[in-house]
Amino acid sequence: MTYFPAELIKKKRAGLAHDRAELEFLINGFVAGTIPDYQMAAWLMAVFFKGMTATETSELTHVMLHSGRTLDFSSLHKPVVDKHSTGGVGDKTSLILAPLVAAAGIPVPMIAGRGLGHTGGTLDKLEALPGFRIALSLDEFQAQVAALGTALTGQTAEICPADKRIYALRDVTGTIESLPLICASIMSKKLAEGINGLVLDVKHGSGAFMKTVEQADLLADKLMEIGQHHGKRVIALLTRMDEPLGRFIGNAVEVGECIAIMKNEPYLGRPPEDFADTRELTLELAAAMLWVGGASPSLEHGRAQAEDLLVSGKAWQKFAEICRAQGGQLEQLPTPTVRQVVRSTANGYVAAYDTEKLGLAAIAMGGGRLKTSDVIDPVAGIEVHKKLGDAVVEGETLFTLLGGSRRSFDEASAMVVAATTISLQKPVVPSLITKRKVI
Amino acid sequence: MTYFPAELIKKKRAGLAHDRAELEFLINGFVAGTIPDYQMAAWLMAVFFKGMTATETSELTHVMLHSGRTLDFSSLHKPVVDKHSTGGVGDKTSLILAPLVAAAGIPVPMIAGRGLGHTGGTLDKLEALPGFRIALSLDEFQAQVAALGTALTGQTAEICPADKRIYALRDVTGTIESLPLICASIMSKKLAEGINGLVLDVKHGSGAFMKTVEQADLLADKLMEIGQHHGKRVIALLTRMDEPLGRFIGNAVEVGECIAIMKNEPYLGRPPEDFADTRELTLELAAAMLWVGGASPSLEHGRAQAEDLLVSGKAWQKFAEICRAQGGQLEQLPTPTVRQVVRSTANGYVAAYDTEKLGLAAIAMGGGRLKTSDVIDPVAGIEVHKKLGDAVVEGETLFTLLGGSRRSFDEASAMVVAATTISLQKPVVPSLITKRKVI
Repeated sequence: MTYFPAELIKKKRAGLAHDRAELEFLINGFVAGTIPDYQMAAWLMAVFFKGMTATETSELTHVMLHSGRTLDFSSLHKPVVDKHSTGGVGDKTSLILAPLVAAAGIPVPMIAGRGLGHTGGTLDKLEALPGFRIALSLDEFQAQVAALGTALTGQTAEICPADKRIYALRDVTGTIESLPLICASIMSKKLAEGINGLVLDVKHGSGAFMKTVEQADLLADKLMEIGQHHGKRVIALLTRMDEPLGRFIGNAVEVGECIAIMKNEPYLGRPPEDFADTRELTLELAAAMLWVGGASPSLEHGRAQAEDLLVSGKAWQKFAEICRAQGGQLEQLPTPTVRQVVRSTANGYVAAYDTEKLGLAAIAMGGGRLKTSDVIDPVAGIEVHKKLGDAVVEGETLFTLLGGSRRSFDEASAMVVAATTISLQKPVVPSLITKRKVI
Repeated sequence: MTYFPAELIKKKRAGLAHDRAELEFLINGFVAGTIPDYQMAAWLMAVFFKGMTATETSELTHVMLHSGRTLDFSSLHKPVVDKHSTGGVGDKTSLILAPLVAAAGIPVPMIAGRGLGHTGGTLDKLEALPGFRIALSLDEFQAQVAALGTALTGQTAEICPADKRIYALRDVTGTIESLPLICASIMSKKLAEGINGLVLDVKHGSGAFMKTVEQADLLADKLMEIGQHHGKRVIALLTRMDEPLGRFIGNAVEVGECIAIMKNEPYLGRPPEDFADTRELTLELAAAMLWVGGASPSLEHGRAQAEDLLVSGKAWQKFAEICRAQGGQLEQLPTPTVRQVVRSTANGYVAAYDTEKLGLAAIAMGGGRLKTSDVIDPVAGIEVHKKLGDAVVEGETLFTLLGGSRRSFDEASAMVVAATTISLQKPVVPSLITKRKVI
């Protein structure tokens, strides 16, 4: 079908819903270059103001995911699953989930991303492992998933090219913050992986993009609706991101924390029990993945199965296999060479973190990129000594700044202090999992 | 000042007002090519949804009018005035107003436009006069205004280049229908003429862009606010456009109707009294122009002065002078060679016209362009035999289709019939001037 682009823009401007043919005309035309940037930009802003219906968002997702190559694991004759996190600080569960679930015989074709804004990215973490190849070709990726049950790679130009182009345009036209556009972007990339089931870790709080539970709940609903329209099994966990997950923020140090959990051994002087929250969230997400993948008849059973895969060392063995396959030199994981302690100037309890600011402090030190040209220091990061609700006395260590140099340590020091609220009253710290949503 | 364009887009998206520096950064950057089309398009759509304050619209007008050359008639030591009409069908008053007001010693530097949508354009009408040069250089234009008191010319690339580029982008991005953008576009071009006073003919009804009096009233307010912010005297007349003005729609035939009014002689068999509404509106607008130009102490005095300038033949003499100066061969005004009568199939009274459809019928016959490549037939047009409220009997002529060929006569015939409502009850026809607004 051929339409007048300006008429489609006016249709959305009036708050009317597009059908699939109209969205194909717009999105495929944009990718092909027949719809110019400026018409797409005006349309995106109209979408920002007028939104999209559930059906329309699903159709947009469909069109975007079919703008490029889609993977097909049907020859494996197994349900294929993945997890998507909306992003947080110290959020490292993917590194354990992929091997753990694959070890249960459920294939996990994990196409991961870079850090975005104040959050870290799985690809950046994997690259802290010397030699780890995160740019597999899609053929290599598919072959490794078939052989080992999982592979972790970066987005390629062949997957969802529409998303790549639209996202770049949204970034410079003030149209990022649109729920249907966010949902279609997330889901098109995940559905292109050829999965049958998806687990969503929808984070809320000071370190998440969704600051309130209500926003996270709405986002989860919208993401799940799309999954349902596409015939997928989806579970969403709403999880707290009002403090960093675990004890380490950074790339190499987050890999180190994950290895410590998988091997049940200390890391940088911390016993594995110190990583209880990372372990807990990982097991809950793993349980959900095992359940949507049909490996477990219930979430409770999945949880027990996940613990067993972790405790037995099977997750760790699979992780080591992945590293061997993708070139990652596990024994060469670098360690921070420079440290600086940040101490408390007050007595009381840690009542709140501005977790986004903690993430930005780690990025300032080289733990991530604020612009594409920034260079990452793989060992840069922050050790978090106190969890929410912990008691603290004046002079006690709150944070240790870590790195390969003292890059931005003064700035980061000021930031982490400003990001920490200490109060005399012990706060009530809610459960890590706020809500489970199943369709 | 330097800003991040995406941040300015988000500012407008949030409904906040820009200051002049921000608008200069956006608009001048767009004209210079440093702000790309797609960011301007997203910003324009945000303006569509969030609007602009009165001050902001004035500042946008200021920035747009200073994007190119502005005229300066201060050396004439006289107030300089112009008129702007929001556009209608059969709307030909400019052809009389420019010479009439100039004949009173008030300079009128009239930069006119082409037809837009279903409406006619002064430039198209002037071009029906063989030899009439409507593309004067700005230097020629200024010299003729100084010498003869008036000149009529087309928009040049030097005047408001920002408006030209923004309008072209709005046209393809669904952002035409934004009141602040409409107002800034109109006023920047008029203020660039170097005028001291402006008369606005804000039309409402089935042949106008504003279908209701309320919309026209609001548009008049916004246009007047901008004029006031720029220290101009402005009068707005809200006028009925629920039937074509006068008896002729077309290019050559509208020039003919104007000459008949100025010379007080018949045209195509019609006595000058048949053009009473065109004459009346022209005199009211002329009175306002004479008043804002300081030639008359009141609108009543201005009206008497305008009638005198018309009846005495001074307006006509000035029109002939303009034609001589700009090359228009008055004696060679072409006459339609082909006619087709459209008759009534009912008895009753003409109760309503879909005036936009009458305008589109004239355009279909070659009276205007729907796209830039369309060729105009200068003698194409429609003679309107019945004014609103006139009695009509079955078989009586409602319209005569006119042209140099029978181009689209069948289509136009069906259109004009469909555009005419005949009822048994005689309708009440309100005054031509709905409201006068003075600041």
